[in-house]
Amino acid sequence: MASYELFIERVKDIHKIGAIQGHLGWDQETIMPAKGSKARSEIMSWLAKEQHERVTNEKFAEMIIELEADTTLTDDQRANVREVRRRYDKAVKLPSDFVAEFALARSQALVAWQEARAESDFAKFKPHLGKLISMTNQKIDFYGVETTRYDVLLDEFEFGMKVSDYDPLFDGLKSKLVPLLQQIMEAKKSNPDPKLPEDMTFPIDAQTEFCKLVSSATGFDFEAGRMDASTHPFSAGLWPGDTRFTTRFDEKDPFSCLYAVMHETGHALYEQGLDSNHSFTPRGDAVSLGVHESQSRFWENQIGRTPAFWKVVLPWFKEHFPESPNWSPQELNRIANCVEPGFIRVEADEVTYNLHIMLRYELEKKIFNENLSVDDLPNTWNEMFEDWFGIEVPEDRLGCLQDIHWSMAAFGYFPTYTLGNLYAAQLLEAMEDELGDIDNIIESGEWQPMLDWLRSKIHLQGSKWTPSELIENATGAPPTPQPFITYVERKYGELYNL
Amino acid sequence: MASYELFIERVKDIHKIGAIQGHLGWDQETIMPAKGSKARSEIMSWLAKEQHERVTNEKFAEMIIELEADTTLTDDQRANVREVRRRYDKAVKLPSDFVAEFALARSQALVAWQEARAESDFAKFKPHLGKLISMTNQKIDFYGVETTRYDVLLDEFEFGMKVSDYDPLFDGLKSKLVPLLQQIMEAKKSNPDPKLPEDMTFPIDAQTEFCKLVSSATGFDFEAGRMDASTHPFSAGLWPGDTRFTTRFDEKDPFSCLYAVMHETGHALYEQGLDSNHSFTPRGDAVSLGVHESQSRFWENQIGRTPAFWKVVLPWFKEHFPESPNWSPQELNRIANCVEPGFIRVEADEVTYNLHIMLRYELEKKIFNENLSVDDLPNTWNEMFEDWFGIEVPEDRLGCLQDIHWSMAAFGYFPTYTLGNLYAAQLLEAMEDELGDIDNIIESGEWQPMLDWLRSKIHLQGSKWTPSELIENATGAPPTPQPFITYVERKYGELYNL
Repeated sequence: MASYELFIERVKDIHKIGAIQGHLGWDQETIMPAKGSKARSEIMSWLAKEQHERVTNEKFAEMIIELEADTTLTDDQRANVREVRRRYDKAVKLPSDFVAEFALARSQALVAWQEARAESDFAKFKPHLGKLISMTNQKIDFYGVETTRYDVLLDEFEFGMKVSDYDPLFDGLKSKLVPLLQQIMEAKKSNPDPKLPEDMTFPIDAQTEFCKLVSSATGFDFEAGRMDASTHPFSAGLWPGDTRFTTRFDEKDPFSCLYAVMHETGHALYEQGLDSNHSFTPRGDAVSLGVHESQSRFWENQIGRTPAFWKVVLPWFKEHFPESPNWSPQELNRIANCVEPGFIRVEADEVTYNLHIMLRYELEKKIFNENLSVDDLPNTWNEMFEDWFGIEVPEDRLGCLQDIHWSMAAFGYFPTYTLGNLYAAQLLEAMEDELGDIDNIIESGEWQPMLDWLRSKIHLQGSKWTPSELIENATGAPPTPQPFITYVERKYGELYNL
Repeated sequence: MASYELFIERVKDIHKIGAIQGHLGWDQETIMPAKGSKARSEIMSWLAKEQHERVTNEKFAEMIIELEADTTLTDDQRANVREVRRRYDKAVKLPSDFVAEFALARSQALVAWQEARAESDFAKFKPHLGKLISMTNQKIDFYGVETTRYDVLLDEFEFGMKVSDYDPLFDGLKSKLVPLLQQIMEAKKSNPDPKLPEDMTFPIDAQTEFCKLVSSATGFDFEAGRMDASTHPFSAGLWPGDTRFTTRFDEKDPFSCLYAVMHETGHALYEQGLDSNHSFTPRGDAVSLGVHESQSRFWENQIGRTPAFWKVVLPWFKEHFPESPNWSPQELNRIANCVEPGFIRVEADEVTYNLHIMLRYELEKKIFNENLSVDDLPNTWNEMFEDWFGIEVPEDRLGCLQDIHWSMAAFGYFPTYTLGNLYAAQLLEAMEDELGDIDNIIESGEWQPMLDWLRSKIHLQGSKWTPSELIENATGAPPTPQPFITYVERKYGELYNL
């Protein structure tokens, strides 16, 4: 067998272990019985070890070196070698004992965080968070520092991104968003947001049906996937023909479920649209978290939170919730776009959302580049939050305990959410240049052209290119924040008559 | 590390792969989206190959030889070495490529069978069945034939059992069951069975709740397991703290769901009762299919189809189905025990059930010992069926397409069902000797003593002994059909006043 075939066979095996981990993770978050968790952790940890051993195998390393020198490879093949090299270089630096110990610490921290968050008791999470920060610092040392320590973490979640990339980006964004927020808050005084009637109930069954209808309309194939319920909505690619996402339900608020579904459907459409000729290889994988998030935010916000969208779905909404008031598409859209500084990131509107991200980014920078101690974390969070949002955090449940990420030691992850917002706006602009007025397309109810565009420009490309190359190929320009700023200023200017 | 520790670590890894296969199999049968089947087959085939390579690893073989000579091992450790040796001796005879190819063929056949059965179109299944039979013949050749070809298969599902064991057993059983059936059919003429009212509906939600109540009452721990729906009820042990079983629903017939639940709960109680000190090793596994089936049949028939059982659950039944007629426990029990020759094995009463098994046994004997061709299979089935049961099979859906087993190449499996019935009756007799009148215990509604007895005699023993040794230890006698014949003649003699 030629070297590339031998190499790619091993790559597929490694990916299959990853797919099984994804499957067991989905099961754990949705339907696993409580007492199954101990054995499940054991299986998951064993799979992690198995995968790590295969990635760092010596013979595999030799194959990579040989293929890097092979000038006869196709672009797709080169993409696989490039991505495997990137992962190998990281994996090989971590001793397997450390990998196992870190996995154990994370799974214990997750349990402690769930309890601490429920009781809003930071003290219960603190020793675990301290340990994860210290082990993450060990990991940074294993990887080696070239620029700043936090850069090592940022690069793990969005290849090539550093503090020196994020800082100017976020400063520019913040300088636009803060005044916009002030303008909106001023406008709301004379023109308050409409609200859902407090005494109305939206039955879970009707929400399920309505949301599945919307998800199908965007193009999600329910014969190749599922929608289930979980505490924290998420999407799991699993493998070709089987993409699963989850949502949550609030009987008083159908928007909570709807936008969770549109968000996760965006992720899931990306997974369903990957090139199945490259399954179980990096070339067939989604390229990055930032690009993934662009797909979820595109359908959730740029399609789902528009008057044109509500014109299309209003009849479905009325059919499923016949007791709702006689809302117009504009009113429903206004409810879906209320701007309001709040404590919880996942409930934030598009104007304040990125401020939540920047706050976490600044804090993580302090932790890893300035040695902010875990003791000082809650106070630092609360002071910064009050300074930026103008409201005082009453308890840590609504502050530094709200997100799952730190309990999984996913430091450096948050900034990719903002990248997703920026990429989404840039993609929308490019799509509009090619397809014509997007509002017209949305209002037509025939959304396939938009999905087709994303399929060809993003989904089918998998990891053929780096994230920046992918965005540049799709939009004609490297990633830039300007389209998002234009988008958000125009959208909220219209909504609040600024 | 001592040799045994190194050995058992490898054994646990092999078991973990098996547990993952079990989990993915459960998912495939219950909730997997249709288009996931192709990639799923690929993953399952890969896992089969991975497992096979580990079982047949040369270093592992050396460990087994070394430990077989080690006189310092405990009974538990010796049981693990013995069971691993048995599996190794088989596995090593199969080439890895054959194992993977066979797994793939099975997985594809399963999909084809589902379609063929739904459409009652044998032609759609035929090429797959032909391939599975031919690959099974290859497997027989790899293993090597000492007595008859079919014996090689029988031994796989119940260690040590051969045609020369089953033939006299089945002949003896048939010689008692056929006259009993004739007597019952005669008695029914003057004393027809009561029936469920045709116009009544038993809502699925109420059936679910009622059946979960019964399952809990027998001792199933829902915090360490789940109940779901699938076309074919089954039970999956998975791993400690996570045992799942499924049922099916018929709005017109709550007995269909109830007895599927009691049957699968019996299997699941066995899995939940295994010794967790020996998890992921043979010592901690259920010992055989026959013994497994004894547990399901015990709860389904010997507990669940008695007047004493119905005295206990009647209040729950009335609560969940308030519109049902004012049945007495005796009437409900009579409905639950109607004897009637029918087409479908899983719906059969205790008198005809074993005839269904023997028919399949005879057919499999013809296939592997007499080269019955796949083309002739439906006709041979139908002719034999009419001869034995006196009714004509109208379509293959009700004949040779009804069972899942052949689509999984599980040839040789069926006879273990009858073994299960025999073991169950023998266990009941022994239990009664020790605990006193079982009807009294059932009627008390306090069923824990029966479960405790099974826990200590069967569940906790895992694979410490061979199936025959286990039955002999538990009952004081080697496996024998007499208790079942006594049981069935007495039970139906009373029910039909014979």
